Amino acid sequence: MTSVLDAATIRSLTDDRDLAALAAAIRELGPNATTELIAELSATEAAIVFRLLPKDESVEVFDGLDRGTRSDLIAALHTEELSTIFSDLDPEDQGRLVDELPANVTTKLLDAVPASDLGAVMAIAGYGRNSIARRMSPTAVIAWTNDTVAEVTGRLRDTEVDLEDVRLIPVLTPDRRIVGTLDALELLRFAPGTDVESLAVPVEEITHTDDDMETAARAALREDVTVLPIGDSEGRLVGILPIKDAARIIAEADEEDYALSGGTQPLYRRYLPTSILTIARTRIVWLLVLAISAVLTVHVLEIFESTLAEVVALALFIPLLTGIGGNTGSQAATTVTRALAMDEIGLRDFLRVAAKELATGLLLGVLLAVPAFAIASPLYGLEIGAVIALTLTVNCPIAAVVGGSIPIAAKACKVDPAVVSTPFISTFCDASGLLVYFTIAIALLGL
Amino acid sequence: MTSVLDAATIRSLTDDRDLAALAAAIRELGPNATTELIAELSATEAAIVFRLLPKDESVEVFDGLDRGTRSDLIAALHTEELSTIFSDLDPEDQGRLVDELPANVTTKLLDAVPASDLGAVMAIAGYGRNSIARRMSPTAVIAWTNDTVAEVTGRLRDTEVDLEDVRLIPVLTPDRRIVGTLDALELLRFAPGTDVESLAVPVEEITHTDDDMETAARAALREDVTVLPIGDSEGRLVGILPIKDAARIIAEADEEDYALSGGTQPLYRRYLPTSILTIARTRIVWLLVLAISAVLTVHVLEIFESTLAEVVALALFIPLLTGIGGNTGSQAATTVTRALAMDEIGLRDFLRVAAKELATGLLLGVLLAVPAFAIASPLYGLEIGAVIALTLTVNCPIAAVVGGSIPIAAKACKVDPAVVSTPFISTFCDASGLLVYFTIAIALLGL
Repeated sequence: MTSVLDAATIRSLTDDRDLAALAAAIRELGPNATTELIAELSATEAAIVFRLLPKDESVEVFDGLDRGTRSDLIAALHTEELSTIFSDLDPEDQGRLVDELPANVTTKLLDAVPASDLGAVMAIAGYGRNSIARRMSPTAVIAWTNDTVAEVTGRLRDTEVDLEDVRLIPVLTPDRRIVGTLDALELLRFAPGTDVESLAVPVEEITHTDDDMETAARAALREDVTVLPIGDSEGRLVGILPIKDAARIIAEADEEDYALSGGTQPLYRRYLPTSILTIARTRIVWLLVLAISAVLTVHVLEIFESTLAEVVALALFIPLLTGIGGNTGSQAATTVTRALAMDEIGLRDFLRVAAKELATGLLLGVLLAVPAFAIASPLYGLEIGAVIALTLTVNCPIAAVVGGSIPIAAKACKVDPAVVSTPFISTFCDASGLLVYFTIAIALLGL
Repeated sequence: MTSVLDAATIRSLTDDRDLAALAAAIRELGPNATTELIAELSATEAAIVFRLLPKDESVEVFDGLDRGTRSDLIAALHTEELSTIFSDLDPEDQGRLVDELPANVTTKLLDAVPASDLGAVMAIAGYGRNSIARRMSPTAVIAWTNDTVAEVTGRLRDTEVDLEDVRLIPVLTPDRRIVGTLDALELLRFAPGTDVESLAVPVEEITHTDDDMETAARAALREDVTVLPIGDSEGRLVGILPIKDAARIIAEADEEDYALSGGTQPLYRRYLPTSILTIARTRIVWLLVLAISAVLTVHVLEIFESTLAEVVALALFIPLLTGIGGNTGSQAATTVTRALAMDEIGLRDFLRVAAKELATGLLLGVLLAVPAFAIASPLYGLEIGAVIALTLTVNCPIAAVVGGSIPIAAKACKVDPAVVSTPFISTFCDASGLLVYFTIAIALLGL
């Protein structure tokens, strides 16, 4: 232990929360020295040091520890203190300093932690906020490739876990690589001596711990799997996601999208018992965003104040025309946001979506312009009728293209498309619609 | 066969599609005569007569038929001709003339029909468009109360059906009444001689064939059941709903709600391959509804045309104020529509919702009015600042109450709350907001 790093230094670095310096020092030590060091540290300090090791080194260090130190380490990995330290890291540092845990350690950790704390522990294990790992459950029953039906049935009989967690049993090679799955009910249909490997359904594409939870959950539901096995980057089983948890993830995502499409934050709780203050808090942010961006419409109208003074009748159609523009934009945004959530379209489809919305918007504009002209002309004169009809024809395609493009642009900026859609689109469509309206009015009315 | 009704009369009544007269004539016959009559008719005519019997009589008639006639009748009950005849009935006649089929007939019918035709056949069986019966599957494996684990395991081993359909096995009394369910995996955990009745989990509340499919599906998912048994009005098993079908029903309902909240019909298909015409068709109806109702805003503004001519600056804030009102209204509508869909609130909560939205709206209005006054006053004068601030304070609670009430009112009128919300609310809020704005302006500016 003549290493550059001793217990006292580590204590002072962890006290200062200087994890970056600590990580750099540890990475210089090498696995053997680190193994020795960990045996000397307090459990919490050992856990912090262990979490800052690069993944391949942490495999080696863990294997080098004696049984007692190992289980102390596992216990320390899910203390509140560690949870606080690693939750406080900013996401960038989290990604840079904390590698994923080796599959065998994560598996032991999952088994040791009460269900309610799993999410927090997966944060310590280095998994991002939206990763499927945050929702994993520990695996209850597994089958090895050389098992027989009778052996797996015996294991299933001996376990006390929730049946939801064992409907589909992961089939693993001796080094825990996922090769397939076995529907537990198949065990009833085949002779006890049957080879499990012959019954396993191969897994086409393994879901990884850092896959996006919504995408993974939707895929699981689409493919009617009852339990989704989750592997580390080498395809070694780490945990599972029972289908009821997948359904819950999707329901939350849908509730969020639905709320955001109505320009409010999701409530995530029952409406009637929720206090007025809490409800107002879910709404005020978007109202302020909308209000501030709606100042744009005031400025646009100021440009045309003299035109308005000359022909006051033009003011009559402002809410009608901005309303239709806003609605056309939010229709396009709704359809495109949904298609993005369903993984039907991606960033690469930007131009195709824009072209489609341009054509759809033009068609809608013409379909609205014809009756608008027929109704407005007798009442307000041919010229006003023509201004309104032409505004609709020009404005609907603009609104549709804007509405269809913004969700894709948001996704490109790694922002949830549903977040920006509603307030942004309605305001933008209001402002651009007014510009189009008054430009056409000035041209046609010769102002 | 000296009855009032002979084969020739029936032929002419069915040819004329006068099902009401036919039903009345049949109800006079009595079960014995009807049984004899059915044996003499062609299979299609027999099926029509049979469907027009009251439920208790049809039980008796079916039991009185010989084996051959029975199976001819079952076959005829799912022909295209019958499907057309009963689909053409208007919903009221459907309810008045067509009782639900007896459970044993529906069960046989379900077994005889290919999966793709099940929905149409359930229409013949007298089930409404939104009833869970429309999505039932035939039951694959059942357990009787006096079965042992070994007997049920044997039945499960002998069937070839999809495992999704047998994860939960309905446990029935000898007269097919549902008493509980048995998770098929429990069969692996208990000795072959165990009594099934002792393992059955009692069903708290039986889902009935005519229950609303979305409500039933949400309850099934909430309670983590893998298969939902469905009973007739006497609690006799008719069919099942595997959980994957429940998930599909909810996904469709959510897609519809989401689309409607964006003011468009759901697409129900992939976006990019869908033609522009089809997309435009999902949007044009709401755009027209919005456009027609937005004419209201034109009329409101016409009332204040002279005020506008006097203070043109008032026009500058029209899009801003209507935008904030519309957004406040749609926020309230979104939250309340969701709470209705989740069965958290019902018609009885109308006043509590209105009171809650009034208070929330007032709070939001004040929160917006303060910064609005602070920003607008230096730019446009104290008076205009006060008009804007006061309009926000009055208009936000109105918009919130309207937005929260309309979905409940829609539900009271048996209209999907999500349908009316968006276009209706934004237009109503625009019109009422303009009224408030100009009334306040006239009062404060002394016009």
